[in-house]
Amino acid sequence: MALYDRVALIGLGLIASSMAHAMRQGGLCREITGHARSAETRATALEIGLCDRVFETAAEAVKGADLVVLAVPVGAMGAVAAEIAPHLERGATVTDVGSVKQAVIDAVQPHIPAGVHFIPGHPLAGTEHSGPRSGFATLFKNRWWLLTPTDTTDPAALARLRGLCEAMGANVDTMDAPHHDLVLAVTSHTPHLIAYTMVGVADHLRRVTQSEVIRYSAAGFRDFTRIAASDPTMWRDVFLTNKEATLDILGRFTEELFALQRAIRLGDGDHLHEYFTRTRAIRRGIIEAGQDTSAPDFGRVAEGATTTGKVRER
Amino acid sequence: MALYDRVALIGLGLIASSMAHAMRQGGLCREITGHARSAETRATALEIGLCDRVFETAAEAVKGADLVVLAVPVGAMGAVAAEIAPHLERGATVTDVGSVKQAVIDAVQPHIPAGVHFIPGHPLAGTEHSGPRSGFATLFKNRWWLLTPTDTTDPAALARLRGLCEAMGANVDTMDAPHHDLVLAVTSHTPHLIAYTMVGVADHLRRVTQSEVIRYSAAGFRDFTRIAASDPTMWRDVFLTNKEATLDILGRFTEELFALQRAIRLGDGDHLHEYFTRTRAIRRGIIEAGQDTSAPDFGRVAEGATTTGKVRER
Repeated sequence: MALYDRVALIGLGLIASSMAHAMRQGGLCREITGHARSAETRATALEIGLCDRVFETAAEAVKGADLVVLAVPVGAMGAVAAEIAPHLERGATVTDVGSVKQAVIDAVQPHIPAGVHFIPGHPLAGTEHSGPRSGFATLFKNRWWLLTPTDTTDPAALARLRGLCEAMGANVDTMDAPHHDLVLAVTSHTPHLIAYTMVGVADHLRRVTQSEVIRYSAAGFRDFTRIAASDPTMWRDVFLTNKEATLDILGRFTEELFALQRAIRLGDGDHLHEYFTRTRAIRRGIIEAGQDTSAPDFGRVAEGATTTGKVRER
Repeated sequence: MALYDRVALIGLGLIASSMAHAMRQGGLCREITGHARSAETRATALEIGLCDRVFETAAEAVKGADLVVLAVPVGAMGAVAAEIAPHLERGATVTDVGSVKQAVIDAVQPHIPAGVHFIPGHPLAGTEHSGPRSGFATLFKNRWWLLTPTDTTDPAALARLRGLCEAMGANVDTMDAPHHDLVLAVTSHTPHLIAYTMVGVADHLRRVTQSEVIRYSAAGFRDFTRIAASDPTMWRDVFLTNKEATLDILGRFTEELFALQRAIRLGDGDHLHEYFTRTRAIRRGIIEAGQDTSAPDFGRVAEGATTTGKVRER
């Protein structure tokens, strides 16, 4: 069932290409137009059928669209919004998929003309891969899609966008932008920075060779490298635009880490044991909430998961 | 082909129970005896066929064994070694599976009688589960098993133990104990401490509810919770016994983290982008080394992985 007539995807990376696959599979729109800065990406998008038509400029791509999805790095949102603003259809909805919400609102909202609905959004879904070939239709299945409407958001436009997200398999939740940015600083942004840091430390060590680090990565470090392999431009923009919340959580993290470090130095085993026991309970909560399974992680992706890999090739 | 006649497993958790399954599947020994402090664990071991016979004391379990595997927390190794020493068969090999090696050598070696071979070991394999029911035969398949022999280690005893590890599917590497402890501080111990810390920070926050943290854990935090769900006693002992190397790596980590934190505060996007680009290369190396696959991680275990989960139930 088509929920929109023409959807314009601005930026054709992992999220936009997954949306394209999911919308086509569900018959959720009649036509998909697209724009990416790189000619190669635009050619790929046509070749693999992500878009019906691609355009050299974002301005051309949004003409006649009733839904415009800004899927560019957070730092580029403002410029794109300024460019497309004069070409937006009256009654159209503009949404975005940025990992930070207040900064996007500050950058985009001033450009949105009267009669156009801007509803910021953030699908909590992704892999460590990027680019137009990395998308697949089930990326959003059973994942959260957070929308951050304001008091003035049009209820009908919000309901329609929510319907699209749900039709792509996502669970939708709404919250205000500052709270979104704090929650994500805890669950995503700070963990990413820490993972990047740990991988960087390993890279610097002289007494341990890189091949040793790579060989013996199974126990813990491997998960960090996957997190730290995510798109550098996207993550640079996340930290620059969610600065306050990230620095807040980082400060708490360092404080907590120093307390554990001190316990190690002083040989305070009780403190360590109590701490490690408490963190187990959170894991149980995540499994119960259906955000992961209790199947053991073998230190590698299980054989069955290659089936999933194939989805990417469609 | 039986490589040992009677193998005694002291401690019956994830590693020992996986060894039992793997040795039985490969017909690698004639008999398996076992000891665990808990009567319930001993009963389970008999019930699910991990051991042919179980004993209330480690001393009884090692009698007549030509291979003794110490699979207890690192902090308990010394006491167990003292207890079993008078009962070890001449010519037998004693090995351990502790995550730290120098501290185990210091605690165990003094008790080993003349004519008995002590060859410390560490399989780099595990899941976040523990206990006698958590083991499965393929845990060690294509994983590294590090042995830390000394100049005086008997070559024949070493070759035989290596043969057993390889027959269980592992790749064997040898190195000296201090180097092992440094490498593991980088690839495993410090990443675990950091994951525990981040999960603890999330648990403390008042402005973000625990249900929000759990719901929105897919993007990064979820991997941390899996790491931080590991056995608290084992990890307490790891940090207490690999103190120097862990504190060394932690110091470097904090230094590096502060540099990134400063770049965020100053808005130095180039620094962040350069750093995040470099860490991607390490990820590629790990995939090329076969320690993970390039299949995307969906933010949850793929459906196919449940097949693997079933292995645990055997």
